[in-house]
Amino acid sequence: MLAHFDKIVRVDFRINTQLPLMVGVSGGADSLCLLDLLVKNDYAVIVAHVDHKLRPESGEDARRVALLADSLGLEFVSREVDIQSLAEESGLSIEQAARQARYDFLFDRADKYGAQAVVVGHNADDQVETLLMHFLQGAGLDGMVGMLPRTLPNPWSGDIPLLRPLLGVWRTDILEYCQANQIEPLFDPSNQNTDFFRNRIRHELLPMLDDYAPGIRNRMHSMAEVFRAEREFLDDALEVALGSILQDQGEGYLAFDLDLLRGQTLAIQRRLIRWGMGQLRSDTRELDFEAVERALSLLDQSAARQRDIAAGVRAFIEDDRLFLAGWEAKLPSQGWPQLPEQVSGFDIVPPTEVELAEGWCLRAKTLTISDSLWEQIQTNRDPLRAWLDLGEQAPALNCRIRRPGDYLVPLGLAGKSKKISHLMIDKKIPQRARQRWPLICFGEDVVWLPGVQQAEGARVTPESQQIVFLQLIPPRRS
Amino acid sequence: MLAHFDKIVRVDFRINTQLPLMVGVSGGADSLCLLDLLVKNDYAVIVAHVDHKLRPESGEDARRVALLADSLGLEFVSREVDIQSLAEESGLSIEQAARQARYDFLFDRADKYGAQAVVVGHNADDQVETLLMHFLQGAGLDGMVGMLPRTLPNPWSGDIPLLRPLLGVWRTDILEYCQANQIEPLFDPSNQNTDFFRNRIRHELLPMLDDYAPGIRNRMHSMAEVFRAEREFLDDALEVALGSILQDQGEGYLAFDLDLLRGQTLAIQRRLIRWGMGQLRSDTRELDFEAVERALSLLDQSAARQRDIAAGVRAFIEDDRLFLAGWEAKLPSQGWPQLPEQVSGFDIVPPTEVELAEGWCLRAKTLTISDSLWEQIQTNRDPLRAWLDLGEQAPALNCRIRRPGDYLVPLGLAGKSKKISHLMIDKKIPQRARQRWPLICFGEDVVWLPGVQQAEGARVTPESQQIVFLQLIPPRRS
Repeated sequence: MLAHFDKIVRVDFRINTQLPLMVGVSGGADSLCLLDLLVKNDYAVIVAHVDHKLRPESGEDARRVALLADSLGLEFVSREVDIQSLAEESGLSIEQAARQARYDFLFDRADKYGAQAVVVGHNADDQVETLLMHFLQGAGLDGMVGMLPRTLPNPWSGDIPLLRPLLGVWRTDILEYCQANQIEPLFDPSNQNTDFFRNRIRHELLPMLDDYAPGIRNRMHSMAEVFRAEREFLDDALEVALGSILQDQGEGYLAFDLDLLRGQTLAIQRRLIRWGMGQLRSDTRELDFEAVERALSLLDQSAARQRDIAAGVRAFIEDDRLFLAGWEAKLPSQGWPQLPEQVSGFDIVPPTEVELAEGWCLRAKTLTISDSLWEQIQTNRDPLRAWLDLGEQAPALNCRIRRPGDYLVPLGLAGKSKKISHLMIDKKIPQRARQRWPLICFGEDVVWLPGVQQAEGARVTPESQQIVFLQLIPPRRS
Repeated sequence: MLAHFDKIVRVDFRINTQLPLMVGVSGGADSLCLLDLLVKNDYAVIVAHVDHKLRPESGEDARRVALLADSLGLEFVSREVDIQSLAEESGLSIEQAARQARYDFLFDRADKYGAQAVVVGHNADDQVETLLMHFLQGAGLDGMVGMLPRTLPNPWSGDIPLLRPLLGVWRTDILEYCQANQIEPLFDPSNQNTDFFRNRIRHELLPMLDDYAPGIRNRMHSMAEVFRAEREFLDDALEVALGSILQDQGEGYLAFDLDLLRGQTLAIQRRLIRWGMGQLRSDTRELDFEAVERALSLLDQSAARQRDIAAGVRAFIEDDRLFLAGWEAKLPSQGWPQLPEQVSGFDIVPPTEVELAEGWCLRAKTLTISDSLWEQIQTNRDPLRAWLDLGEQAPALNCRIRRPGDYLVPLGLAGKSKKISHLMIDKKIPQRARQRWPLICFGEDVVWLPGVQQAEGARVTPESQQIVFLQLIPPRRS
């Protein structure tokens, strides 16, 4: 066991004996076996212990681990955490809170002490329990992989790996090793407490399943090995796909190329959505099978163009892209004129230049008619320019966001009014751009929907007296 | 349900209403619901029933299904099978024997009646039970896919698909449908019998797991969907890999290109081995995780060059190939001279030509020495030709297979004898070719190991009197 263990740590994990390892030592059989193996193989070890304060004797346990470290001549670091309170405050279960406190501490110390890795004592039985829990939760391939012998990056660090060198060793072998080496593990009665889900799995469900199908622990352990390689294969394929399909990624959103996404196999499409959700939400527990299928239903051209996915993330189609965006997203909108947030409207007193959102501006000036101006108006092709006849007693010229029921009578359509909302939809203005799109009005009446349509009511003729020239100017490309 | 069902059958399965469907009808809720839906959607149905003879009232059940078919104006086919005896004879469980008898009958009739498909009534609960059984057996991705809505090819036919249109419908919905449509299912008490593994899963284990993790049935059903797409992805990748890596396939064996196999990801390597085993053995239940790993261990250059895998299949490396071969394999040996099976030796009386195995032959003639012959002998580079000095009182020239302890004194090595087995290994003659490799002898003594080494004892000199010229001639390439 000693030599095999050393091979795993030294060769598979590429760990050298010079730099320190931050080793989590609860005082149970697993961590004491781990510690013994590391020390006997001459690794530089720092013993780390977290006192969860869940049992009256926990302080005594900490003292005994400290004594052990001292007797081995090893550095000892520890922290007391009131897990009960932490769980109550955070809404996590006792198990989750304890886990989080442990890893936070281990990686914090590892960083401070320049440790090359954090090492913990999970064994093959722990692995099988984890797999079964994931299976019950309906995890796919990613969950059925279980814990990994080496995890980097991990949720706590991008450069310090988390190592589990005992992941292939069964609990009985660890207990045997402890006995053979005169190691006396501390007894933790909470391991017997079947209020904890993992303990129910360990003491009730797994023995029962083993009765149904003897040898299931070994088979599940092997299954995780197989799944691991297949997951890696799919991950590689995902990465290749991402290279071409991910078109844009910003604060709280990302966008896939729609045609390229459609061309992928279903397996990769699903993984792209999961990957995207993982980018937007670190906790994707809400992301069940149906949520992923909702996002993919948008690929069907006859289906809706937007759907809620999960955890406040929405998927929608815009032009040739599929967006995933959280409610907090700052979506790119430099392509459109928009009124700034919190501004619902303003008066326009030419000559003037008013800043809009994202570097756009609205310019206005008054002109008098001339042959050359008339010529220019007749031949204009730029939908972001308009010439309006203010009339003799025109109400105040202003710019505002839309209101329910807004309409205009299109230039040349003699009396037939059209809803602003319909004009926007016909012009394929993205939904999220409609609310803050600037409308140019005489008093209440919309006379120009920039980029789309001018109204009959402000039509310029060769006889017009007061003309105002309006122009929406996009931001300068940097 | 009616319209949704029709869409599945007509669109997803591409079934038309003109050609008959062979529908398995036990008389239970699933099959009666299935039958009703098919009839109401105007499909051409033939009702097929197998009487398993496991219960005294089974004959009455068959009669009632026949009556139902008659009342619907449908053709009815049935067969009685004594499953109890079948199980005893074949060594299968009752469940396995019943299943086999059912599908044998359904596909046999489907073929006779020109049916476009066999249709059975498995539902979503059956699917979840199957998944859980596979999980307990340690099945990987392939097993976690569960039953497929459409299977072609299947174990019973290469052109008649097996359809399961109710695979997405839960049992409760089927029972509701039956009630709403005045369908009265026959009661099969054996569905309650927990001696049967599936019934234990259904009535004991699944309710218990649902207690641990409420909603597990739905999640497992979705999981199978996800796994199905991922399996397809891996299958596609496997097929691409096979295109280049599969170098040879014959009776009871196949061979992969070793370098190309080494270049694959672990996931595809494992799947190639599984695929190969599937080609050689239709039942791969013996092929557990360790068996696959044994085969792959040969890729490690420092490891053994052959291993037993499972079910009488051996993996071995030969030249630049990895072979998988059953004990029954007729391996290709046209590359080597071999004595025919059952022939252990024969005398050579020149001039003669003797047929060996696989189209090879041994030609022998006597010559007398001359300058040009001497020149030819000196410059010969073909290891399948030899000139031997028969000497004055040479013992009978013969050809035979090797015996333990065979040796020869190599030409020019003055007295240093070498074991035939060592010479063969040094020359990298594949192990399976060594036993029947032809040895040329004077009496007992080996004087030529064709392709490898001639013996000092039969060396030709310019003074030689009696010379025999021997040549091994490969088969003509067709």
